[in-house]
Amino acid sequence: MAEQKATNIVWHEGNVTPAERAKNLGQKGCTVWMTGLSASGKSTVAVALEQVLLQRGKHAYRLDGDNIRMGLNKNLGFSAEDRAENIRRIGEVAKLFADAGMITITSFISPYRKDRDAVRKLHDDAKIPFIEVHVDIPLEEAEKRDPKGLYKKARAALASGKGMGFTGIDDPYEAPEKAEMVLPTHKLSIAESVQKLLDELQKRNLLSA
Amino acid sequence: MAEQKATNIVWHEGNVTPAERAKNLGQKGCTVWMTGLSASGKSTVAVALEQVLLQRGKHAYRLDGDNIRMGLNKNLGFSAEDRAENIRRIGEVAKLFADAGMITITSFISPYRKDRDAVRKLHDDAKIPFIEVHVDIPLEEAEKRDPKGLYKKARAALASGKGMGFTGIDDPYEAPEKAEMVLPTHKLSIAESVQKLLDELQKRNLLSA
Repeated sequence: MAEQKATNIVWHEGNVTPAERAKNLGQKGCTVWMTGLSASGKSTVAVALEQVLLQRGKHAYRLDGDNIRMGLNKNLGFSAEDRAENIRRIGEVAKLFADAGMITITSFISPYRKDRDAVRKLHDDAKIPFIEVHVDIPLEEAEKRDPKGLYKKARAALASGKGMGFTGIDDPYEAPEKAEMVLPTHKLSIAESVQKLLDELQKRNLLSA
Repeated sequence: MAEQKATNIVWHEGNVTPAERAKNLGQKGCTVWMTGLSASGKSTVAVALEQVLLQRGKHAYRLDGDNIRMGLNKNLGFSAEDRAENIRRIGEVAKLFADAGMITITSFISPYRKDRDAVRKLHDDAKIPFIEVHVDIPLEEAEKRDPKGLYKKARAALASGKGMGFTGIDDPYEAPEKAEMVLPTHKLSIAESVQKLLDELQKRNLLSA
């Protein structure tokens, strides 16, 4: 009986093709890379986008501080070297998820152009769509929001002469020069931001096989 | 017009639940962790299992040397510390894939019980099913297969007095004591091994929402 069932099993040499995955999932894998200041709204938009995609029967997954910093990257600190390695690993994992056919949404400040461009190259080399989204609000706006009180801390640290290397305060945010999309979340509702992202995915024909 | 469309967009606070993902994908995420000697057949079975799952409309992804060693873990060598970190990172990524709802199949020698048990704990703590599969063939059999000539090299290195820390030759393989499944691939066809894995996934009710 077990042997008879086993005769139904056939497979071919090598890897499942991207086309086979796309057909199976009804979409094409890609990475939506959100970058922007702390409190710019990256995670808020990412959470909403993921949910709306799932409601529409699409398959999305979000990589963010919650599931990366406490897990894969828990052995990394905040030195320049560790920050680069943090983004490198996230880029590699995003690429794996996209290769698996998922719409992968990352939300990390990722302040350095060099690190983001390395992730872009990784995707380009593998012919996996990479959509850089600059969640772009003025620093004053982010500082006004400051939901976790981090800007306040950073200002205090700076005033005390120590500093904490906080992006936008005493560490640079290098804005993308060629982002596929800019989302000024202080001028858009969350629904509008999500709609713009959906339109972009649709335009690139990523929401069907 | 754009605003009108945006009014269709609704979302809730917080993360997509595992149940929402399961419903969306028609399956429950899990990790199938293949462990065994070099040339035991881990990758062969993993490749076939992935394909057969996809043919059946399921969603699976394979993590193996090809997509990990050249990417996420390219900055790791073969010291004891790096070997442990190699498996730790793979375990974290497998957990993310399983959390995303995928049937995640890993095929790495992963010779040390301690490292595998840490990956198991990671999954247990997150209530994500972890299925350890010991791809179990005698060393003599693996050495006879030796498709990449690695055992031959390891024996030569050992004879020359240098050694290369090759699992089964001059580095230990610590067989699982509580694997969920043992696959003696020298006694089973690939189809039979795949069928046993499918039966196990079915038995655990992972192939439906």
